[in-house]
Amino acid sequence: MTTTPSAPSPAPSTALLTDHYELTMVQAALKAGTADRRSVFELFPRRLPEGRRYGVVAGVGRALDSFERFRFGDAELAVLRDGQVVDEATLDWLADFRFSGDVWGYAEGEAYFPYSPLMIVESTFAEAVMLETLFLSIYNHDSAIASAASRMTMAAGERPCIEMGSRRTHELSAVAAARAAYIAGFATTSNLAARQRYGVPTAGTSAHSFTLLHDSEEDAFRAQVASLGTGTSLLVDTYDIAEAVRLGVEIAGPELGAVRIDSGDLGVMAHKVRDLLDSLGATETRIVVTSDLDEHAIASLAAAPVDGYGVGTQLVTGSGHPTCGFVYKLVAREGDDGEMVAVAKKSKDKISIGGRKYALRRRNAKGVAEAEVVGIGEAPLDDGDDRALLVPLVRGGEVVGRESLDAARERHLASRNELPLAAQMLSKGEPVIGTQHV
Amino acid sequence: MTTTPSAPSPAPSTALLTDHYELTMVQAALKAGTADRRSVFELFPRRLPEGRRYGVVAGVGRALDSFERFRFGDAELAVLRDGQVVDEATLDWLADFRFSGDVWGYAEGEAYFPYSPLMIVESTFAEAVMLETLFLSIYNHDSAIASAASRMTMAAGERPCIEMGSRRTHELSAVAAARAAYIAGFATTSNLAARQRYGVPTAGTSAHSFTLLHDSEEDAFRAQVASLGTGTSLLVDTYDIAEAVRLGVEIAGPELGAVRIDSGDLGVMAHKVRDLLDSLGATETRIVVTSDLDEHAIASLAAAPVDGYGVGTQLVTGSGHPTCGFVYKLVAREGDDGEMVAVAKKSKDKISIGGRKYALRRRNAKGVAEAEVVGIGEAPLDDGDDRALLVPLVRGGEVVGRESLDAARERHLASRNELPLAAQMLSKGEPVIGTQHV
Repeated sequence: MTTTPSAPSPAPSTALLTDHYELTMVQAALKAGTADRRSVFELFPRRLPEGRRYGVVAGVGRALDSFERFRFGDAELAVLRDGQVVDEATLDWLADFRFSGDVWGYAEGEAYFPYSPLMIVESTFAEAVMLETLFLSIYNHDSAIASAASRMTMAAGERPCIEMGSRRTHELSAVAAARAAYIAGFATTSNLAARQRYGVPTAGTSAHSFTLLHDSEEDAFRAQVASLGTGTSLLVDTYDIAEAVRLGVEIAGPELGAVRIDSGDLGVMAHKVRDLLDSLGATETRIVVTSDLDEHAIASLAAAPVDGYGVGTQLVTGSGHPTCGFVYKLVAREGDDGEMVAVAKKSKDKISIGGRKYALRRRNAKGVAEAEVVGIGEAPLDDGDDRALLVPLVRGGEVVGRESLDAARERHLASRNELPLAAQMLSKGEPVIGTQHV
Repeated sequence: MTTTPSAPSPAPSTALLTDHYELTMVQAALKAGTADRRSVFELFPRRLPEGRRYGVVAGVGRALDSFERFRFGDAELAVLRDGQVVDEATLDWLADFRFSGDVWGYAEGEAYFPYSPLMIVESTFAEAVMLETLFLSIYNHDSAIASAASRMTMAAGERPCIEMGSRRTHELSAVAAARAAYIAGFATTSNLAARQRYGVPTAGTSAHSFTLLHDSEEDAFRAQVASLGTGTSLLVDTYDIAEAVRLGVEIAGPELGAVRIDSGDLGVMAHKVRDLLDSLGATETRIVVTSDLDEHAIASLAAAPVDGYGVGTQLVTGSGHPTCGFVYKLVAREGDDGEMVAVAKKSKDKISIGGRKYALRRRNAKGVAEAEVVGIGEAPLDDGDDRALLVPLVRGGEVVGRESLDAARERHLASRNELPLAAQMLSKGEPVIGTQHV
C-alpha cells in the first residue's frame, strides 16, 4: 500500500531529452512532404538479457507523464535556434506540435519476451519519430531495474526486500529505480524523492557514521533508541557484532525492532545473531542483512534466519544488465497511394519485423503461460485461454492509460505467477516461454 | 569548444534525493546533542573497477549545482511531516538548514586511484551527513561514465567519438552522461538537453526510419540532402551498402560529408566503403561507424579507414562498470573534549582509514606520475614534483570551486597525459600507479 504523494514539483519540458537527429529528420521530412505520412513505430526487445527467463515492463506511467510534458516552449526553441539545430520552418512546426495519434502498449508490470511489441505508436511520421529517444530511455532503464528486482523478490519469497541503491546511480535514476523496484515487489525504498513523487513507502534508520559520531557504541544506541524508539533497527557491525547485539537488547529491551548486519559472512552471522537474540529473549527482533546483495546472494540466504534484505548496487544497475536494449522501429507507413505498407530494414544482425502487431499470452487450461503470440494485423477473437497484452495508453493525443502504482505492482505479481515454474530458476537459461510469430 | 548554454530551467530542490536514514540520524543526533559535533567525511573508492588502470573524477560541477539547491522548502517538509519521517524539532531544523562548512575535492577531470580522497566535507555532523546520498549518486554515476569514456577517446586517438547513448539509460542520466563523456574527450553528443544545460555540442542526421519512410532510398537521400545540405551524413546500411554509397555520391556529389555504417563487420565494410568512395572521387567523404562499440571495438578498428566512432550503450553503462562504488565515510569528529578524533569502523572486508587526508600526485623529474600519495594531516611543502590534488569547492557554505566544462576537459587530458604509458593498455591489469599511505 502506497502513501499519498504530495503535490508534484513544477514539471519542466521533456522535449529536449531527445536525440538531435530526431529533429533533423523532422526537418527533412517536412521539406520533402513526407512528414505527415501515417506511420507505425514499435518498441520491442530482440532478446532478453543473456540467460534471463523473463523480463518485466516498467516505465509506462513515467513515459505517459513525460509524454504530456513533451512540448517545445520558448526556452527549448531558443536552444534549437541558437544552435542552428533545425531551420525556421521546423521551429514553427515544433512550436505548434501536439501529438495527435494513438499509443498502445503492454501494461506496466507485465512480463515480456523476445519480440514482445511493448509499445505501438501510430501517428504521423514526424509526431511519432520524435518520441523515440524519450520513450526508449524510460523503458530501457525502468524495465532493466524491474526485471532484476523481480528476480530478487522471487528469491526472497515472503521476506521483504528494501531498495537502498540511490547512492550508486544517477540521483534521478535512483527515484525511477525505487519506483520500478516497488512495482516488482520491493517493500520499501530508502529514497525520499520516491515517496514524494510516487508514494513509495520509505524506511531507514542509521549508518556507521552515527555510531562513530558518538563516544561509544552505547552512547550511539541510547541516542538512537531515545529518538526513534525501541522498534528501531540498530546497525550492529561497527565494532563487535555479538557485543553490539547484547548492548542493543540491553538498551531497547526485547522489543528491539531489528538489527542490521552490513559486512562479513551474512549467513553465518545471521545464525549466530539469531541464537544470541533468542537467548536474550529478543525472539521477535528481526535480522536485516545488507552488503552487495543480488538475487543469487538472496537465494543463498534462504535457509538462514534472515527477516529482510537490503539491496543497493545490484538493484540499481540491473544486476549485470543495466539496460534492456529495447529499440523503436518504423514497422509500417503510408505509401504514396495512401495504403499502409509494412517496412523493415535488411540486416542480418539487427532483425526487425515489418507490420502492425498484436500480442497475446497463450495459456493452457490451467492458466499457465505457454507462448508469447505475436502476429500482424488484427488479433483473433479471444478463445478464453489467450490474454491480449496491448492496452490503450494514448488516444487522439490524450493519455488514457494512467493507473496507480499499486495496480502495476499487483499486475506484476499476477503476470509472474502465471509463468511456468522454470521462471523461478536463477541460473542462465532460455526464455521460459517461446515467442510465436504468426 | 562548447556553445553558450541557454538560460537554465527552474531548479527544483534536491533535498529529497536523499536516503531516509540520513534524516533519522539527524533527528537522533539533534536529540542527543551530538548533531553539532565538528565532523569530517571523506568520499573515496576502495578500488578501481576490476582490471582498470585508472579512473576519472566527474560530477564535481553537477554536485556543486545540486548542493546549492539542497534546501528544504514547504513541499519537502510536507512530505517528511506527512510521512512521519522525522519529528517536528527536526523539521524545524531542516527548514532553517544552510550548510556552513567547507568542502575540498579533486578537480573535475582528474585521474583517481584506490583510496584517493576525492572529496572532503567538513562541517557539523548533521550538515555533512545529509549530503551523503546526493554527492555519492552524482560522483558514482558521472565518474563511471567518464572513466569508460576516457578509455574510448584514448583508443580512438585523433578520431572523434560521438556520444549517442541517451536511449539506453534513464532520460536524465543521459544528460549527465553526455556531460561526463565530453569532459573525457568526446567531441559531440546526440543529446539536445546536454546542449541546453551544459553547452555540449550536438550532432546527428538520420535513422533507418527516415529511409524506410520514403518510397525508395533515393527519395530519402534526396530529401535529406535537399534539407540538410551535401555536408550531411547518410546512413547507408538500410538495404545494400555499396548501392547506397553510390547513390549518396550521385545525389550529393563528392562533397558528401559522411556515410554512416551501423551494422555488419565494421572493419571490413569500412575498407570496402573507403575504396568505393575514393573510386567515386569522394575522397573527403568521412566514414562514421556505430553499432555496439566499446573501447575494445574502437581499438580494433584503429587500422580501418574510419573517421569517427558513435558510441551508445557501452558509454552510458560505463562499459561494464555502471557505478564506481565510491563511499562516504566519517573519518574524524570532535570528541567531548573538543579535540578532533580520527574514527573508522572495524571491518575486514570494508576498509576505511580514519583521519583528515591530503593527496598528492607524485611525479618523476620528467613529469610522469609515479604514485598517489595519501596522507593524514597537513600536506608537506611541495618539492616541485608533487602536485596537490585537493582544491577548495565550498568555503563557509559558499561554492568557490565552479569552473567551465572546458576547463575540466582540458584538465582531464593533462592528467591522463601525465600517467605512465601503461595507462593506455585496455587489457585488465593493476592501477597504473600505486597508492602510498603516508
